[in-house]
Amino acid sequence: MTEQMYRVALASRPTGAPEADNFSYESAAIPTPGEGEVLVRVHYMSLDPYMRGRMDDAKSYAAPVPIGGTMEGGGVGEVIASNSPHFAPGDFAFGMFGWATHAVQPANMMRKIDPNQMPITTALGVLGMPGFTGWYGLTELGRPKAGETLVVAAATGPVGSMVGQVARLAGLRTVGIAGGADKCKLATDTFGFDACLDHRAYPDAKALRADLKQACPDGVDIYFENVGGKVLEAVMPLMNPHGRIPICGMISWYNAGGLGAGASDPGLSAPGLWRTILVNFLSVNGFIISNHFDRYPEFLGQIAPKIASGEIRYVEDIAEGLENAPQAFMSMLGGGNMGKQIVKVL
Amino acid sequence: MTEQMYRVALASRPTGAPEADNFSYESAAIPTPGEGEVLVRVHYMSLDPYMRGRMDDAKSYAAPVPIGGTMEGGGVGEVIASNSPHFAPGDFAFGMFGWATHAVQPANMMRKIDPNQMPITTALGVLGMPGFTGWYGLTELGRPKAGETLVVAAATGPVGSMVGQVARLAGLRTVGIAGGADKCKLATDTFGFDACLDHRAYPDAKALRADLKQACPDGVDIYFENVGGKVLEAVMPLMNPHGRIPICGMISWYNAGGLGAGASDPGLSAPGLWRTILVNFLSVNGFIISNHFDRYPEFLGQIAPKIASGEIRYVEDIAEGLENAPQAFMSMLGGGNMGKQIVKVL
Repeated sequence: MTEQMYRVALASRPTGAPEADNFSYESAAIPTPGEGEVLVRVHYMSLDPYMRGRMDDAKSYAAPVPIGGTMEGGGVGEVIASNSPHFAPGDFAFGMFGWATHAVQPANMMRKIDPNQMPITTALGVLGMPGFTGWYGLTELGRPKAGETLVVAAATGPVGSMVGQVARLAGLRTVGIAGGADKCKLATDTFGFDACLDHRAYPDAKALRADLKQACPDGVDIYFENVGGKVLEAVMPLMNPHGRIPICGMISWYNAGGLGAGASDPGLSAPGLWRTILVNFLSVNGFIISNHFDRYPEFLGQIAPKIASGEIRYVEDIAEGLENAPQAFMSMLGGGNMGKQIVKVL
Repeated sequence: MTEQMYRVALASRPTGAPEADNFSYESAAIPTPGEGEVLVRVHYMSLDPYMRGRMDDAKSYAAPVPIGGTMEGGGVGEVIASNSPHFAPGDFAFGMFGWATHAVQPANMMRKIDPNQMPITTALGVLGMPGFTGWYGLTELGRPKAGETLVVAAATGPVGSMVGQVARLAGLRTVGIAGGADKCKLATDTFGFDACLDHRAYPDAKALRADLKQACPDGVDIYFENVGGKVLEAVMPLMNPHGRIPICGMISWYNAGGLGAGASDPGLSAPGLWRTILVNFLSVNGFIISNHFDRYPEFLGQIAPKIASGEIRYVEDIAEGLENAPQAFMSMLGGGNMGKQIVKVL
């Protein structure tokens, strides 16, 4: 094949927030699948906060993207050539195809998708890694009980909206935090949060905490941690005894010098945090969903019917064109998206 | 009764390390037990780091000792008068008798002890709250697996020595940290730790971490947190993925301005700690043993025979006289004790 493909490569490592020149949009020859491999034409790709971490070379759960390497990420696409008995041209699949129009992947690293059952974009959000992350973290590490209170930030994102809706269905009071009045309206009107606070309306953690306390009159039993920073500082002192804090990410700190920057509130210094964990008997658990794929069928079995019935809703924000992926990504890290951020590649 | 008793009261709240004038030694009339109550003559009382926390009025799991109130604490003593069918004069019992020669307590708040089975002092240490704390935290929250590596500080204290011995019997490599060469020798020779580091020999967390890394060639799977400070800073970067950190206390921070002081290593600032928890999928759990008394019979059933057989050993450091309790307490907070600190009251 001599047809060209396109990809977005990591041109340089960002310091702080990524900028356009950290990325390069390049053409390349479409690769040929080897034995057991499949060639896919990517239709949609996912943009997720964790990708910011892959741009650094600090120690993390995954190896960094090398300079010049294709940016990593999940996508859904159509099989156009296959050297595996498990896939035929015309099949749709989810895989880690990267920021690219085409990708070759081992068949055993891909998951087949039925485009007639659900829009294929759902494999990137509500029924994909983000939705699964929210469901697993809440269910397994949050251990929700009816009558309790949950707080989650990025409440309209694909993780936060799953967390909030699953918690609401389990009988919890759900309080979201989001950036801007529009997102807060989306959180309450579409995702059914009992309340949502606009973190941009508060100058600091202390001010946010005061209103959060009003919104959580019985304290906070589960804080699903996916942003860090000001929200974490605001929530910690409100945690009830035996509270649970699943941690799946800290987007607000991803840009802050490799997460090394100090919290602004001295009471939330390291000893302050540890003391809070101790005296409230908190359970704080970091996790990454890729260690728990064995639970995916259970997630799908529980959640897919609730999406079909409308009990669980989802919102997608779709940017057009692979060449616009860096801009969409930078915008998302700044909260510019409304719902799950996806890029339409094809 | 007109006979006099003696007690140690909280005269004033300490700022930083407690000093002699924070305590007052006072006489009082021996109280008379009401319906369902028992009068006890205290033989031995326990000194524990948590008592430092009760001297502050900061929010904690327990109400502070009021100014002028008797210092709280557990003790073992002999019943000398009883208005309960459950206790008779001559019985021995454990209870929260405070820093006092005599105490009246409701019978249902006391636990009978058989002085013929085990020395009564063991009810304060190896078979009491500290030993139970170590066993529960390690077993339930540490989830030890043979071949893993455990680190615990205050390794010769009643909590740390239980943690280390139970972990060793479960097939773990056990590395202790203690203050001084004598304690390190006690840790390896008496309590069977594979290695013990003297934290006083290191100027900072970084230096301690370097040797700890040598002592833990396969990393650290369980860090039983009972001291905080320099040791915590040293250990955190050595934690293996899926590591567990049970937290039962942070003695090194108790004196540091209500635990609000910052860690010295900026990498261990709040975002740094949270990032470590996230990227290593750590499980961090604060606990207080009084929430888990339902497990006490199981603890006793497992550990008492191992003490009788010599598989688990204990060391006690007994000060003489209630009037010397403040001095023994201040010394213990500075690491001056060797083994479980007890005061012989009678």
